[in-house]
Amino acid sequence: MKVLVINCGSSSLKYQLIDSDTEDVLAKGLCERIGIDGALTHEPAGKDKIKTAPAMPDHKTAIGIVLEQLTDKENGVIASLDEISAVGHRVVHGGEKFTKSCIITEDVLKEIEACNVFAPLHNPAALIGIEACQELMQDKPMVAVFDTAFHQTMPEKAFLYGIPRKYYDEDGIRRYGFHGTSHQFVSNEAAKMLGKDIKDLNIIVCHLGNGASVTAVKGGESVDTSMGLTPLEGLIMGTRSGDLDPAILEFIANKENKTVSEVVNILNKESGVLGLSGGVSSDFRDVKAAKAEGNKAAKAALDAYAYRVAKYIGAYTVAMNGVDAIAFTAGLGENDDATRAAIGEYLECIGAKIDAVKNDVHGKAAVISTDDSRVKVLCIPTNEEVMIARDTVALVK
Amino acid sequence: MKVLVINCGSSSLKYQLIDSDTEDVLAKGLCERIGIDGALTHEPAGKDKIKTAPAMPDHKTAIGIVLEQLTDKENGVIASLDEISAVGHRVVHGGEKFTKSCIITEDVLKEIEACNVFAPLHNPAALIGIEACQELMQDKPMVAVFDTAFHQTMPEKAFLYGIPRKYYDEDGIRRYGFHGTSHQFVSNEAAKMLGKDIKDLNIIVCHLGNGASVTAVKGGESVDTSMGLTPLEGLIMGTRSGDLDPAILEFIANKENKTVSEVVNILNKESGVLGLSGGVSSDFRDVKAAKAEGNKAAKAALDAYAYRVAKYIGAYTVAMNGVDAIAFTAGLGENDDATRAAIGEYLECIGAKIDAVKNDVHGKAAVISTDDSRVKVLCIPTNEEVMIARDTVALVK
Repeated sequence: MKVLVINCGSSSLKYQLIDSDTEDVLAKGLCERIGIDGALTHEPAGKDKIKTAPAMPDHKTAIGIVLEQLTDKENGVIASLDEISAVGHRVVHGGEKFTKSCIITEDVLKEIEACNVFAPLHNPAALIGIEACQELMQDKPMVAVFDTAFHQTMPEKAFLYGIPRKYYDEDGIRRYGFHGTSHQFVSNEAAKMLGKDIKDLNIIVCHLGNGASVTAVKGGESVDTSMGLTPLEGLIMGTRSGDLDPAILEFIANKENKTVSEVVNILNKESGVLGLSGGVSSDFRDVKAAKAEGNKAAKAALDAYAYRVAKYIGAYTVAMNGVDAIAFTAGLGENDDATRAAIGEYLECIGAKIDAVKNDVHGKAAVISTDDSRVKVLCIPTNEEVMIARDTVALVK
Repeated sequence: MKVLVINCGSSSLKYQLIDSDTEDVLAKGLCERIGIDGALTHEPAGKDKIKTAPAMPDHKTAIGIVLEQLTDKENGVIASLDEISAVGHRVVHGGEKFTKSCIITEDVLKEIEACNVFAPLHNPAALIGIEACQELMQDKPMVAVFDTAFHQTMPEKAFLYGIPRKYYDEDGIRRYGFHGTSHQFVSNEAAKMLGKDIKDLNIIVCHLGNGASVTAVKGGESVDTSMGLTPLEGLIMGTRSGDLDPAILEFIANKENKTVSEVVNILNKESGVLGLSGGVSSDFRDVKAAKAEGNKAAKAALDAYAYRVAKYIGAYTVAMNGVDAIAFTAGLGENDDATRAAIGEYLECIGAKIDAVKNDVHGKAAVISTDDSRVKVLCIPTNEEVMIARDTVALVK
């Protein structure tokens, strides 16, 4: 079965066409600058990337162009759209309503819209993408896969904030968590690599990309995660602050005469390693280069980053009363052995020892702990698109 | 040497007269409703409490009344003020300037005033108390003891927030930490109880009072602590939220048309177990009673409270790469065996086992872990006043 996976942002759209039998990617690509001018990167499997700049006044046009590319005589990978059996859509926020992926119906669209309040930038974009696909592929079943769904198994003690109860009961303010598709995929892969039933394992997944979160997975279920109501909470990220004293918002707002929304914007877009490094970059390669040249703020940013991840690993070890495996994934987690090693420095006390030689691995699944490490440490490339395709197939076949 | 210890709030003032040789409390008491009407509770050692309601239009009058009580023919404990050798003042925020206690000079007063921006309610009150004492006891040396000073040994990775660097460099926004006097006192007591040199120990101190914080003490130095720029961060407290997604402030401010200061006020005064329990109480005895009667919100508040403390213990275990002892102190930590037990449920994985029988201890120093517990768990009454008296004596003699 061939599944088209769509990940729609406000002005961009990522896609992959996946053969669900082999889990091979037949083609993938990226539409950018939708509504501005338009830019397309299309990559058929085994061929070179094709970059073009077709006009993309809206998402429907962009998706039309994607479908043309997929069926193009020269660069296409399928003869006609009939070969596509279903479309899987990534949706960021599913609130408490969606505890798993589901077939998209009119009711589901309304429920997704009801979650817009928690993801005002992301959810409306997903809805636009879904509606555009529905118009262009009226006969295809569509599935929504939520970033939050995997975390809906969290117990109250993990998802409640220490604020007046009415904010949860009436407004739904609670920890939702994100990157759920990745945390689920990687924890399943970890169990496979260890040759064990996931039901018997306590796994901590560190999804370290430009956005970053840590999840405690007990018996295959998320029991705690570092992102919260929004993706701002938790780890220090590329441009996001993660955890801080809430009173800091008041301090900055009053000092700089800013609204709380303006301060939250700073915390989302100008903070993290970008901000801590004094503006060097949100890209770790740049920050590491600056550190190597003696930039003390860059060094401080990297030290604080690794330290924060380690503290979450400690917290979640205790949250599950023990850990069997720690898995690193996503851009940084899969590729940056120095950051993994820096985090590992803290972990001997919980029985996790990273092997310096085995840790020299990048973008490949591997055990990176020493043979005598009681807790296994793993490097596992994430694959959210395959996970979306799997969920889509399970629902439509 | 007799030391008068003063802890001054905006409309209240606590005092103790301590014999520093024996560390006995000769008398203690509390002035309340200063600037409103006035109420005094005075308790000479070994005698009954005396409650009176003298007019207290200002702090100077209140302190005058305290000094009269101390030298009173009937209820006094000293013949004249000449017996008081020095006065120790508790000051909440010492910023980065004060890494330890110090003799109060004109320059010190200016530096304390410069920290008012971080503790706008507490520091001005301390300054009023100091100035009133200086006027009434012109010949006595005065010492300032800071809640933040003990934490000034924290490394950058622990005190920097993931926000633009300029907010630290230019505005001093960083983690400062509080309850330092208590954390220092209790960690020293823990080392004594274990018969070990504190330099060789990793200790986690849980100061669980109405305000609450956890500190990682490595070799006698604070290396991380849960309160931050202000006392709002970290644990769920009596009325304070502790950690949350910073974006929640934006959500509540926009939804309820509130300023960020109004939201922070809710987070400080209407949150914590009070808020989470749906308004039952900030007092754990009330919340536990409500839970016993089947109140689910009360149960959720207690569960979330213990879980948060346990996660900090896990985080700080990893932060120090190991822990030797965990000490519970302050109102709840010293007295509430059920809360200690609830926290202990999470800690076996790090080698800490609480003994159900030994844990039945209240307000007394005791080892409460099992004999085979690798990590020792201790109940230790805190004594900030004695610590202030010790620091005062060390500086004036």
